[in-house]
Formats: sequence, structure tokens, C-alpha cells
Amino acid sequence: MVTLQLSCPIIVKHQAKLPILGLARNQQKHLSKLPSSFPASLYLCNSQEPYYPVPLFPPVDQSVAAVVFGDGSESRLYPLTKRRSEGAIPLAANYRLVDAVVSNCINSNINKIYALTQFNSTSLNLHLSRAFSGILRGKDGFVEVIAAYQSLEDQDWFQGNADAIRRCLWVLEEYPVTEFLILPGHHLYKMDYQRLIEAHRNNKADITIVALNAIRDKHPGFGLLRVNPANQVIEFSMKSERETITSISGKSSRKSDSVASGNFPSMGIYLINRDTMSRLLKEYLPEATDLGSEVIPAAISIGMKVEAYLFDGYWEDMRSIEAFYHANMECIKRSNMRYNFYDRDCPVYTMPRCLPPTMIREAVIRDSVVGDGCIINRCKIKGTVIGMRTRIGDGAVIEDSVIMGADFYQAIPVGIGEDTQIKKAVIDKNARIGKNVLIINKDGVQEGDREANGYIISEGIVVIIHGAEIADGSII
Amino acid sequence: MVTLQLSCPIIVKHQAKLPILGLARNQQKHLSKLPSSFPASLYLCNSQEPYYPVPLFPPVDQSVAAVVFGDGSESRLYPLTKRRSEGAIPLAANYRLVDAVVSNCINSNINKIYALTQFNSTSLNLHLSRAFSGILRGKDGFVEVIAAYQSLEDQDWFQGNADAIRRCLWVLEEYPVTEFLILPGHHLYKMDYQRLIEAHRNNKADITIVALNAIRDKHPGFGLLRVNPANQVIEFSMKSERETITSISGKSSRKSDSVASGNFPSMGIYLINRDTMSRLLKEYLPEATDLGSEVIPAAISIGMKVEAYLFDGYWEDMRSIEAFYHANMECIKRSNMRYNFYDRDCPVYTMPRCLPPTMIREAVIRDSVVGDGCIINRCKIKGTVIGMRTRIGDGAVIEDSVIMGADFYQAIPVGIGEDTQIKKAVIDKNARIGKNVLIINKDGVQEGDREANGYIISEGIVVIIHGAEIADGSII
Amino acid sequence: MVTLQLSCPIIVKHQAKLPILGLARNQQKHLSKLPSSFPASLYLCNSQEPYYPVPLFPPVDQSVAAVVFGDGSESRLYPLTKRRSEGAIPLAANYRLVDAVVSNCINSNINKIYALTQFNSTSLNLHLSRAFSGILRGKDGFVEVIAAYQSLEDQDWFQGNADAIRRCLWVLEEYPVTEFLILPGHHLYKMDYQRLIEAHRNNKADITIVALNAIRDKHPGFGLLRVNPANQVIEFSMKSERETITSISGKSSRKSDSVASGNFPSMGIYLINRDTMSRLLKEYLPEATDLGSEVIPAAISIGMKVEAYLFDGYWEDMRSIEAFYHANMECIKRSNMRYNFYDRDCPVYTMPRCLPPTMIREAVIRDSVVGDGCIINRCKIKGTVIGMRTRIGDGAVIEDSVIMGADFYQAIPVGIGEDTQIKKAVIDKNARIGKNVLIINKDGVQEGDREANGYIISEGIVVIIHGAEIADGSII
Amino acid sequence: MVTLQLSCPIIVKHQAKLPILGLARNQQKHLSKLPSSFPASLYLCNSQEPYYPVPLFPPVDQSVAAVVFGDGSESRLYPLTKRRSEGAIPLAANYRLVDAVVSNCINSNINKIYALTQFNSTSLNLHLSRAFSGILRGKDGFVEVIAAYQSLEDQDWFQGNADAIRRCLWVLEEYPVTEFLILPGHHLYKMDYQRLIEAHRNNKADITIVALNAIRDKHPGFGLLRVNPANQVIEFSMKSERETITSISGKSSRKSDSVASGNFPSMGIYLINRDTMSRLLKEYLPEATDLGSEVIPAAISIGMKVEAYLFDGYWEDMRSIEAFYHANMECIKRSNMRYNFYDRDCPVYTMPRCLPPTMIREAVIRDSVVGDGCIINRCKIKGTVIGMRTRIGDGAVIEDSVIMGADFYQAIPVGIGEDTQIKKAVIDKNARIGKNVLIINKDGVQEGDREANGYIISEGIVVIIHGAEIADGSII
Repeated sequence: MVTLQLSCPIIVKHQAKLPILGLARNQQKHLSKLPSSFPASLYLCNSQEPYYPVPLFPPVDQSVAAVVFGDGSESRLYPLTKRRSEGAIPLAANYRLVDAVVSNCINSNINKIYALTQFNSTSLNLHLSRAFSGILRGKDGFVEVIAAYQSLEDQDWFQGNADAIRRCLWVLEEYPVTEFLILPGHHLYKMDYQRLIEAHRNNKADITIVALNAIRDKHPGFGLLRVNPANQVIEFSMKSERETITSISGKSSRKSDSVASGNFPSMGIYLINRDTMSRLLKEYLPEATDLGSEVIPAAISIGMKVEAYLFDGYWEDMRSIEAFYHANMECIKRSNMRYNFYDRDCPVYTMPRCLPPTMIREAVIRDSVVGDGCIINRCKIKGTVIGMRTRIGDGAVIEDSVIMGADFYQAIPVGIGEDTQIKKAVIDKNARIGKNVLIINKDGVQEGDREANGYIISEGIVVIIHGAEIADGSII
Repeated sequence: MVTLQLSCPIIVKHQAKLPILGLARNQQKHLSKLPSSFPASLYLCNSQEPYYPVPLFPPVDQSVAAVVFGDGSESRLYPLTKRRSEGAIPLAANYRLVDAVVSNCINSNINKIYALTQFNSTSLNLHLSRAFSGILRGKDGFVEVIAAYQSLEDQDWFQGNADAIRRCLWVLEEYPVTEFLILPGHHLYKMDYQRLIEAHRNNKADITIVALNAIRDKHPGFGLLRVNPANQVIEFSMKSERETITSISGKSSRKSDSVASGNFPSMGIYLINRDTMSRLLKEYLPEATDLGSEVIPAAISIGMKVEAYLFDGYWEDMRSIEAFYHANMECIKRSNMRYNFYDRDCPVYTMPRCLPPTMIREAVIRDSVVGDGCIINRCKIKGTVIGMRTRIGDGAVIEDSVIMGADFYQAIPVGIGEDTQIKKAVIDKNARIGKNVLIINKDGVQEGDREANGYIISEGIVVIIHGAEIADGSII
Repeated sequence: MVTLQLSCPIIVKHQAKLPILGLARNQQKHLSKLPSSFPASLYLCNSQEPYYPVPLFPPVDQSVAAVVFGDGSESRLYPLTKRRSEGAIPLAANYRLVDAVVSNCINSNINKIYALTQFNSTSLNLHLSRAFSGILRGKDGFVEVIAAYQSLEDQDWFQGNADAIRRCLWVLEEYPVTEFLILPGHHLYKMDYQRLIEAHRNNKADITIVALNAIRDKHPGFGLLRVNPANQVIEFSMKSERETITSISGKSSRKSDSVASGNFPSMGIYLINRDTMSRLLKEYLPEATDLGSEVIPAAISIGMKVEAYLFDGYWEDMRSIEAFYHANMECIKRSNMRYNFYDRDCPVYTMPRCLPPTMIREAVIRDSVVGDGCIINRCKIKGTVIGMRTRIGDGAVIEDSVIMGADFYQAIPVGIGEDTQIKKAVIDKNARIGKNVLIINKDGVQEGDREANGYIISEGIVVIIHGAEIADGSII
Repeated sequence: MVTLQLSCPIIVKHQAKLPILGLARNQQKHLSKLPSSFPASLYLCNSQEPYYPVPLFPPVDQSVAAVVFGDGSESRLYPLTKRRSEGAIPLAANYRLVDAVVSNCINSNINKIYALTQFNSTSLNLHLSRAFSGILRGKDGFVEVIAAYQSLEDQDWFQGNADAIRRCLWVLEEYPVTEFLILPGHHLYKMDYQRLIEAHRNNKADITIVALNAIRDKHPGFGLLRVNPANQVIEFSMKSERETITSISGKSSRKSDSVASGNFPSMGIYLINRDTMSRLLKEYLPEATDLGSEVIPAAISIGMKVEAYLFDGYWEDMRSIEAFYHANMECIKRSNMRYNFYDRDCPVYTMPRCLPPTMIREAVIRDSVVGDGCIINRCKIKGTVIGMRTRIGDGAVIEDSVIMGADFYQAIPVGIGEDTQIKKAVIDKNARIGKNVLIINKDGVQEGDREANGYIISEGIVVIIHGAEIADGSII
């Protein structure tokens, strides 16, 4: 008789002959119903200290996979998305939009990250593989871009986020995870997903939806949750954007692990059990293409346990040029900064660089941030985000703007020319702004498409297009 | 007056004012005609030793980008391509098809590799990023998968290799390379591309086509070159596959840097100057979708300098199950092995692993190769490729087969069951072959589609499908 | 008034002016007593969900650093340590000795690992940096070799493990860890250190010592613990090796979180609070050089809380050629394997490789393991560990041996020559055993030093020295 | 009969039986005299295109290993070397001293780098492994720190650079390189070592010494070369530092590949053939400890071919606080910068980071460089190097100084306090300078040791020690 034991927390004893050397596997501990004829095999991990307590749940880093959506083809962020996925848009001098969400994952010990994308996917693929393959490596960690692809069974592009997940389930299920965490990639916020996961598991939920615990002036567009006092979502509706939402702010009388009932706007973040996901997408709703408008309401209607998890921190949905501009302005605030890039415990990760220091000839700089490796001459800068490798010429004056910088140091200088003035503009990467240029939206245009001239105006903000050249003396 | 100098080999002097700190760039040395108004700037590299010789050409690792095509949707390799790109098919126990071509690049010091793909692209993406991101990193090196993507300008999939390159030119041109090396990804051969590049540059060619210097029984299907005594391609035609090709073997009277005139079959490998590529695809042939049948003939007809480069080593075009099977058999040859996996100088790179050693209980093994981490019980193996993590039960007998192995050690054993016999079969990954199974193509079928039963037969070779389960006692 | 909040779990409110942007830090949550004059600053993490529970302890991967000792200069493992640290000796075909302990760390989520060494430190440095820098990278993870060094304050080598830690405390304290886990590097066992850490923290211990819960025939030499029923170590003594130890096996009546009282042999593994370590080594015992014989007994005598943690799995202390040989034999056992290299959940990590598959010409192999990339001709192998890149010639017969393999494929073949017979021997790396050699310890020598001839005999086992050449026809 | 061929450029034919599968190796092509009895084996690389030209020399990246010396225990750089090797001293805001030399190697395609060290080696080990293991990885590339170690043969520390190399030759010879490039690690310059290597090989030299082609006010202390018109070193002498050196500037009439005769000061850089090194250190001079004063003169005296290679770019030997200070000042020069950190072609590599952008509240900054992730409040900065993560309080005024910054963002702020003034000082990392401090060397001291107070003065420059705290209101 041979006594065998499962490798880790839960101890099982088998009596068996050993035809082929068996090997322990994560599922056995947490997931699987072993077939009764299971050949036992050599679970020859050490029978280590059976008398110490066993953790209730599998560790997050082994049991949850994040699925990040990197783009939306009808983006209102055009022209920043002309050549890029939304997730690849530069943000806050040194980052890209998607870094915030991926960093949340890393800081929450989630190290299996899939990014699903099909619109200008190359840019996001390049960024993610360069930025995170080193950080996430290690014990089965990775960030992997799954671009839309053709197969013999399906020659189409992804038809929506539910369709994308359905078609990629065979990849997403490669590792024995227990839950999928669905994340829109273009949001700026800090959140410890581990606590969301704990709440989900403690509640034995099938699906947990993260919602805003706040009155917002605008509906974020991910739907509205009606929550009962037992914390369950009893209704989920996609409302029109303009409709007012009245939600109970609920700051008053909450207890741990419970939320007040009421209506809350969804953030588009879902934690869904692996089995639930598979059943919903393959069995119950094999034709559904969208999670928010189709899958979640169906799950509620068939009686699945759908819980709410409220979040009340800073959250910016960067879906428009204006929202993107405001997210950038957040990072230069003198005080009461709501998104902290300088937090050693929850750092924001991005592509590691080893650029030279920023060289400053003679500048007066106020309330601004300056990225790595800039070359700044005699100029004045105020309330501005200066991106990596930006060059600014003598006499330039820049205010309330977002300068994205350059991808390389170039022979023919990229950047802001001499005596140029810029106010409330977004200058995309590698643009060349000549000398004596005025970018001030002189006519106070709200919306304007001058793409042939190298810019558009959106919500009053001038956006100079990636790589555009603005001739000396131009006035915009 | 300030004296300025270009960063490295060639010394240039400028007189200029310095509005913005200028920075040297690769193109200046090798590529670019600087605009006359060029603001000079601080090329402040050291004026190092001007009296030593300067290399004639830029180093290959900085100046050539490889473009590997990872798939073909009409693959005759089905069902091995059911879930994978061709490039991701396991080969020779420890490798994937695409490793041979990528390793050629690495061994030729080409460290900028783009893999273009759209058919089941995920598998190739996962493999390439896991396998090569570490090896190629370093001075601007990378392997990057460009999956077909939608953009505002183009909502379609790639329509052919020329279309794919055209749509990705903006990415491919990110680095200042001087030539693109176009490579089909499913070929098995060793070639030092540096010498191809030298020949191309010495000949001042616009395009160099690599062709087989051999009479082959089958036309490889990449077209036929007619070459004149001056080594130039004077005609390029896509012939039907069945047509006989007579080429002059030319072993007799060649001199360095010249090839005999005659007809040679193309290998589908093209070295094309960056500018040439851009002009052909954008200006001259903006609608062309295929390089071989459209772009190359057009280049010849408009008088571009198209050269031939002959290759006469081992080359296997793995376009069919049979060719794939033969390529595997090549690696178990007792002698006169034509593709050497054990060459320290030209190693074949692939995904690094740290698997445990192969455990052998009691086996008689002949003329076979065994991958990492197998578990082999009392069995007989002959003329077979045993892939990673394969388990073989007691009493099994395996001959002339390709067993691809498993992706993970699993609780419910994957592999070959007890007393099972296999002959001339390909067992795809993660398949479970039960006990007392016979896989011997007992009816001598040449072609047969039994996909529902877990296998197909192609050219007399039984192919068990990825993850299929073959019940105990089955006879195939 | 500005409301500020600590970054993560615990929410604190400050009223403060903000002279310099303050930044949150790990210690604040778990370690530090902030000075009362602390300038508050911008702890501007989001005030995320204050009503969910907070984990009691900091996560292991951020709060524990492992300190692995990689060598001992009086090693009885000579000549395997002629050019290497003990930790760098090849083990079980594909591994190195130290891999077992480092893999325990990785599998226990400890990702800060310092290896202290001074004896032949280069080999260990090369192995650890090549093997683990990729796996451990990520969120502040690393393995770093600290070789003995000279400083202005101290020109000496390390005088013992306590001296080594004292001199390196300034490095070890770089990250805000709360405990140090002291690990001898030459032990073979699997242990989940997380549960040790939980027990230590639950017990509020200053020091926890890991001890064997078993009667062993030999005293491991790390001292003997006398434990009271409250689980505390009341005596710690270093006994002579030969002395018999009687310990209560205690299999009968244990409850969770308690151990039986009695005597247990220490395994030399200590978990010590950061502050405790600092006080002991700097204040109380500034001259002590050894942890086991000096520091631990002193800690007990001054009333520190020293706990025991019992371990009753497989454990091999590879301090002699014989023990090393037995550890290797463990990995070829047909059943009842006590150390499982094939466990997917607790894998053994080592240097990733991409070697070609093992090529077998015609071999009968029994109860053996075969490493990556071997070339095995017509031969018989039984009960043997065949290391990476080993070549074995026609007619060779190998039994009950450990062949370590080769570091490179070489032109002049390294390996076992034709018609050579080997029995119960250890063949170190890169040795060339000629043809018709007999390595059988024909005279039955127990101990013999024939280093000039390329071998020594230890406890009846012939050990061929690294790189030695044994001439054709030799008989040993 | 079997026809076999060497793997790459040179084609050789063998007739042989194949007892063990043979494998090609670098040496065969470039180094080795194959034994006549060489068993031929399967050099089964493809017989690729024999009619194209073969490169004359092996590629630099495979055939040269750099040996960098990281420290000198009698450093005049104290107190910057209190806890560090010289090579690990922060330089130019974002770098470390050794980065310049390692970057030269990378930019010269030398990817095998050994750093020999024994003095405070830990710091250098940490930096090099974190900074370069990613960049150099790839085809057999690495940077490896070899710390002094004890072995059974030798219990001593390294006795000099020649002794260090001798004891490490077994490591340095692991790869089949043909030359060693010996590099002091504390020099700031840019040099393309490939051209040095070409000159060395074209001259068929045994040793090539790099010397300054310039009249310098100070003798760098590495000896003086007398060179004959044939470019050979006919005398090498270590002169006292004060002695004047008169060298022919030779700008006038040089031809390619020849240097004028005369006297030139050595830069301590030697390119030495592998065999030459081995013979000199092991056979001829087995007791020599220093290369410059013992080994090189001996090589000349026994008639070895010792050549000179002149370098006339910017070169700073950072051996004193003053020289270190000047090297930092070089990088903030407005024009005529002699060491260019911003050169895309010859970048300076260092540890990759992903710090947040520098935040500037309201600052006037002139002729300064600012590293990544600083937090700068209302202050004035002129002529200063501001290192990574530096914080500067309101009202501070900093001139002509080097602020090294901080290793972490810390809760208790590290940096420069409010209303503090600093002039011509070096502030080492993690120092806390209080409020209203004056660091101005008010007494005009040239040399002063106030280590207990947290600083020393060297050549008139105040150096605040690593981690020192300077109390509010202090005047220095």
C-alpha cells in the first residue's frame, strides 16, 4: 500500500497502483471533480505539516485571469486613434492609457493578462509586449495580446466583447483559473482587485459587477444597476447617455461587506466565474455579442447570483478628447491629486526606458510635469504635460497643454519651434511645430476637422495629429 | 564658430547656430540626404580616430528587418492548423515550425523581426513572444507579431503578402533599415542571410531573389526564375505545380559572386530595398496583393535590378502533412543528417524551458529523438520523434511516428496508453490515446476525413487531432 | 483643509500643509512608527472601498526576504566543489543543488532572494543570475548574489553565517521586509514557506526554527531543539554528529497549530524578524560569527520568543558525496519517489534552456533519467542519471551512476567512450572517458585520493573530476 | 563514404566513421588546429553557397570578451565609495560610472562582459545585473560580475589586475574568444572598440595599447608609451604623475592605419590575444600582479608584437572627487558638449526604469539636467545635475552642484529642505538636507574630513555622505 498526497493545501489519500507517473495540478485542489476512475498516480509532494491552517481560497495570482479590452473602433478619441488602439495613446508624459489598468492588475497580484483587440492592434501589441513581458514574467505570468484572427470556423472580425471572449475561450482557458476579470482598457483609476475578488468569493457570486458609488454628471454608458439590500443586482439596464442618474451616495450607514440598495452606474468591470462564462457564452447565449447589453441581463433573468461591488475613488473614463485632456490635467495638480503616479506601493508600470536626463537651458516652469529625456531651451511652461524626448525652442510659451513628445531623437528636430505659443492643445507624438506658430484656437472653434492641415479641434481643444508638420508662422 | 561632427565613422563639419540640441541618427550615416536647410545641431560624438578605415556597409543587425509570413489559410497542413498558424506547429520534439527561420535570422545577426499573420494568429503570437523576446532583446532587437487589424482606412483582412506589407509599412519603417528580407515561415533550412545581403549590396540590386540551385522532383510553387549570365533575373513566372522544371545544376564552373545562367525555382525569399518596396507597393502597384505573381514580375518589367542568389543546401517546404512528416524524420536520421539541430554555431532557438529530465522505466529505443520531460515506461520505440512531456504506457510499441507531446503535466494522463501500437502516425499535442489501441492505418487509406472520430488520414499518414481522445481498444 | 489618505488598506486622515509631495511607503502600513512631526504629504491613493476587510498580514512576496547560504568551504563534497560552490553542483540531470531551495522560495511567493557566498562564488553567481533573473523579476523580485567583499571597515572574508549577515545587513535591509528567512542552500526538500511564515506571525515569535519531526539515523549537525508543550524552544544545543538523538515522532495526537513537546533536530532554517536580527547581530552579539552555535542560544537565554516549526517530509542534507549520490538516486525511483520533480504545482526551477531533443541510436534504458540534448548510441543504461548533453558511445554499459554531462557541444567529443563500463560512479561535467574504460572501483576502495589521475573515491563511490580525461583502456 | 562539411564559411571534407555524433564549434573556424586524428563527425550544416566571399575575421560579438575592472580600493573618490565600488557611483542624474564603459562595449557589439571586483562589490553586482542582463542577453551575451572568491588553491583576495585575471582565466576562457579587451571601469569616453579590434587584427599584434593622442596637463597614471614609426610600442614606462609629457599631437600628416612616432600616455586599455594572455600570466610571469607595471613591459622585452592605438576624443579619468565633479559638469554644458548622452546611435545604457515624470511646481532652471521622477517645488536651480527622485523644497537655491537623488520614494522625505542654499557641492544619494541649510563651504576649506557630521570636503567641493542627515539651519 502506498500513501499518496496532493501537493498542497488539501490533503487527500489514495490507494492505487501507478501505471503512469501522475502529476498534480491546480484544478485538483480548487476546481475539478476528479473522475472516480482517476488513476491516482504519484502525487508525491511532501506530506508537509498537515496540522497548520489551509487558506480558504486559491491565491489570486494563480486563479484569476484578466481580460483587458484595448480598443473600440468608434472611438471619440480620434485623431489620437488614427494609428493606435485607444490603449496605446500616450498619457501623463511617460505612460500609455492601458498602463493604468494593467498596473492595477500587477498591483493586485493578477499576473495572467490577456488583451483583446482588433482595431489598430499593432500599436498596443508593441507596447504591451515591450512594457510588461519582463515585469509579469515569473511564475506563469504574462500579458498576451490576442488580436482578432481568422480561423476555419470563423472568418469574421470580433463582433463585440462577448463574441471576442467566446472565440478566445480556448486560449483563456489554457490555465486553470477560476474567474475572469473583464476590464475596459481606457479607464484611469486605482483599484485593488484582490478585494473585489475576496468579496466575490465570500458572496459565492456567479458574477460581480463593479459600479460607481457616486453621483456623476454624466452616465458612463456601461449601464445602470438596481441593487437590493442584500447586495444583489436585480436589474441591469443600458440607458441612454443623457438620462439623469440618481443614485444614493450612501456615505452614511454602510457596514463592511454590504452596500446600500439603490441604483448605481456600472463601470463595465465584471468578475465572472470561469464556468459561468463558458455556460453563458456557449450554451445559453451562443449568439450574443455584447456583455453589457445581452449577457449580463440574461444572467440576471435566469437567476444567476449577480452581485454589485461599489467603488468610490477617482475614476476617469477617457472616451473623448475632453476626458483624455482632463485625465492628463489631473496629474499636474498642485494638491488634491486624485490619481497618484508617485505611490511606491501602487506604482504605475509602463515600458522601462533608459533615457538621458532632461536638459534645461533656461526655463520657467509652473505646475507641469516633464517626461524623460526632454531638451528644453529658453521658454515658459505652465500647466502642461511635457512628454518624453520633447524639444522646446527658445522663446516658446506653452500653457495648459499636453505635449506627447517623440519616439526617437531625430536629426531633423521634432518638437516645438522658437517663439511658438501654444495654449490648451494636445500635440500628438513626433509632430513638428515650426517657429512663430500660434496654436490658440484663435476663432474659438468647438469642433473642427482640419485633418489635411494637420489638426482637428474637439470640444475646443486643438489636437495636432501624430507626425504632422505645422509650418513656421502658422496661426491655429 | 562651432565645429561639429557626425557621431561615428564619417566626419562632417558644420557651421551653425544651435537653436535646439540636434542629435545624430542612423540614416545620416548611411541613408539620408540631409536637407540643405538642416540645422546642423550638436553632433557631439567624439571625433574619434579619423584615420582608421570605415566599413563599407551598415551592420546587418541595424540595417535589415526580416518580415516573416506565419501562415497560409489554405494550408494543406490541416488538421495541424485547426487551432494554430502553420508557424506554431510543433516540430522535432522541442521546436515549432517557425523556429527554423527565426533562428536563421538570429544566427545571421538580423534582430528586427516582424511576423505578419492573420490565420489563427494567437498561437504564433504566444510562441514568438515567449520564445524570442528574451533572445532578441538588446540593441533594438525584437520579434513582433503584426496580426491583421482594422483601421479607419481599411476594414479588411490582409488580401495577400503584398497587401499585408503595404498596410504595415508604417510599422516596418519605424527603424531606419535599408532592406527588408521577406521570408516564408514554414521552411526548414539553414542559411546565412548575411551573405545574401552582402551579395545584394555588392551587386547594387533593387531586389534579390533566393532560388534553389538544384533539380527538384516537385516545383516548390514560388515561381521560376530565368537568369542571364550576368546573374540578373530576366524573367519570373509562376508555373503550375506539376510542370517539370529543368535547371542547370551548375556544379561545374562557377566563380565567386556569379551564378550560371538558366532556370531556377524561387524559394519565395526576397531581399528588397526599403525604397524599392515603398515605391512598388504604394506608387507603381497600389492594388497588387501578391509579391510573387504581381510585384516581382512588374519590378522586372519596369527595369529594376533584380538579381538571383542560389542556395543549394537542404530545404524542405513543409506545405503538406507528408512534407511535415519527412522534415521530422530528417532529425532522427542516423547519419547524413541534412538539418543539424546540434550545431553549436548555428543553434536552433525556441522557447526556453526548464523541464525535468526524461524518466525512462524500461525501454528499448532505436533511431529516435526524445524531447524534454517525458515519462516513458516499459515500451519499444523506433524511428520516432517523441515530443515534450509525452507519457508512454507499459507495453506500447511505437514506430515511424511523430508524437508531439503535451503542453502541461496533467492529472488525467495525456499520452499513449498501455499496450497500444502506433505506426506511421502523427499524434498532435494533448491527445489521449487509450489502452490496446492500434493506430496502423489498417485499411491502407490514402486520404480520409474522420475528424469526428479524432483523426484524419493524409497521404497515408494517420493524424490524431490536437486534444483528441481515442478510446481503449480502438483500431485505426 | 485637505483630506489625505494612506495608499492602501488602512485609511488615515491628515490635516497638513504640503511642503514637499509625500509618498506612501510599505512600512507605513505594516512597520513604521511615523514620527509625530511627520509632514503628512500627499498620500493620494484613492480612498477605495473602506468597508471591505483588510488582510491581517502583509503579503509574503513583499515582506519576507530569503537569505540563502551557497557554500561551505570545508565541504565534504570535494572534488565536486573544486571549481564550484556547493550550490552550483549539478543535480538530477537538469538542475543544480541550489535550485531546490530557490524553487521553494518561488513556489512560496518569496521573490526577494539573497545568496551569500565566498567560496568559488563565481559559479553560483553565473548560475543564479542566468537561471532566476527572469523568473523572479517583476514586482521587486530578484535573486542577488552577495559575494564576500572588502570594504574600508572590514578587509576580511566572511567569518561565519552570522558575520556574513551582519556585514550585509545594509543590503538586506534595502527593501522594507519584516522577516528574514535563513536557508542553507544544499538541502533537497519541498516546503511551503508561506505556512511557516503564517505560523511564525500567528505565534508572534521573534525567531522560528524549522526542525525535523522524525527520528533520523544521523544528526544533521544543525543542533538540537528542546521544545515545551507551548511549542517554544527552551533549549538549543549543538551536539556532536555521532550522538544519538531520540525524538518523539509525534504522529499520534497533534492538533492544528501545535506541536508535541520533545527534542527535535534543527534543519538550520530560521525565520527571524528584521528588528530581532538587527538587534542580535549589532547590539547584543556584535562579535558572534555563527547563528546556530552562538546567536540562537543567546536569543533563547535573553528571553526572546523562539518557536519551533516541525517538518516531516523528505529532506536530504547533501553534505557528503554519499548523500549527494543518494539524492540523485531518489529521482530515478520507480515508485514512492520522495522528491517529485514532475509536480506542476511546485515545479523545480532552473536555468531555462532550448537544447535539441535527446537522440537515441539504439539503447536499452532502465530506471534512469535522461537530461536534455543527449546523444546516446548503442548502449545499456540502468539506474543512472544522465545529465544534459551527455554523449555515450556504442557498446557502453552504465549502471547506478551519475553522469553530469557537458556544458557545450564540443568538437572533440566529451562523454563516455565506446565499450566503456561504469558502475556506481559520479562523472563530473565535461569529463572525457575514453574507450574500453572500466570504472568499477575494482579494488573496492572506500576512500582514495587519485586526483592527479582524474578521480577520487569517497565512501566507495568513484568520482571523476570535472574535465578530467580518462585514457582508453583505463581500469579504475 | 560520407561527405562531411564544417558548419559555416570554410568548407572541409572528411572521410570518417562516426562513433559519436560530432558537433561543430566556433574554434574550428577561427582558432583551432584540429588534431589529425580528429573523428570528423557529423558537421552537418548545409553546404551553403561556397562561391560567395568569406569574412576575414570572426565577428566581434562572438570573438572578443571585455574584462572591466570595477574598483580600486585606494580610491580617491571616498566617501562616494564608502558603500560602493567606483563603478557604481551615480553619474549625470540617471547613470552610474561604469555605464559609460559597458555602453561602449554594447555599441561596439561586444556582448561578453566580465566585471572583476572585490571592493564593495555588492553594489556593482546589483547594478550590472539589473541594468544589463536584459540588454546583453541574446546570442551568448552577458555581463557577469566575478567577485574575488576563495578557493582551495587560493584563499587570498585579488592582488592586482593581473592576479585577478590569472585566477579567473578558467571562467574567462569558457567561450572560445580570440581576444580579451581590458578596460578600467571608471573612465568617461566614447570609443568604437570595433575599430581598435580591426587595427589589432590587421597589424597581427599580440597586444594593442590604447593611448591618448593629446597633450594633457596631467599624466593619467597608466604609463607612457614610446612608439616607433612602424606603430610599435618600443618602450612602456610607469612615470610619476607629476612629470610632464610631451607628445606629438600629430594632427598634420597621418595616414590610415599608421600613427606618428613619439610618446603617448596610456589609457590603461589593452587588447590582448587570448593565447598571449594565457602564456604571459601562467608561463612567463606566474607571479606578476599588475598588467601595466609588470606584464606589458615584460611582453615588450621578450619581443612580443605590442602596438599602439591612438585615441583623441574626450576622455575623463574619474579618479578624484574633482574629476568626478567635472565629468558631471560636462553633461550640462550649453554647447560644445564633449560627451553626448543624447546620441541615438551611441546611446548610454543603464538600468531601465519606469518612473513617473518630474513634477515641477514653480521653478527657474538654468543650464541643468534633471533626472527621472523628481519633485521640484518653488526653487531656483543653476548649473546643476539633479538625480532621479530628487525632491527640492520651496525656496531652495542650488548652484553648480551634483544632487544624486534617492533610491526610493520615502515616507520621511529625502532631499533638499525649504529655503536651503547649496553651491558647488556633491550630495550623495538618500541624504536628507534640512531647512534653511547653507552648504557653501563658507570657510573656503580645500580638504576637510567631517565624516561624523555627514560630509567631507575634497578639493574645495563639499561632499554630503550617502544617507546623511543635515539638521535644519546647519551651515557648512
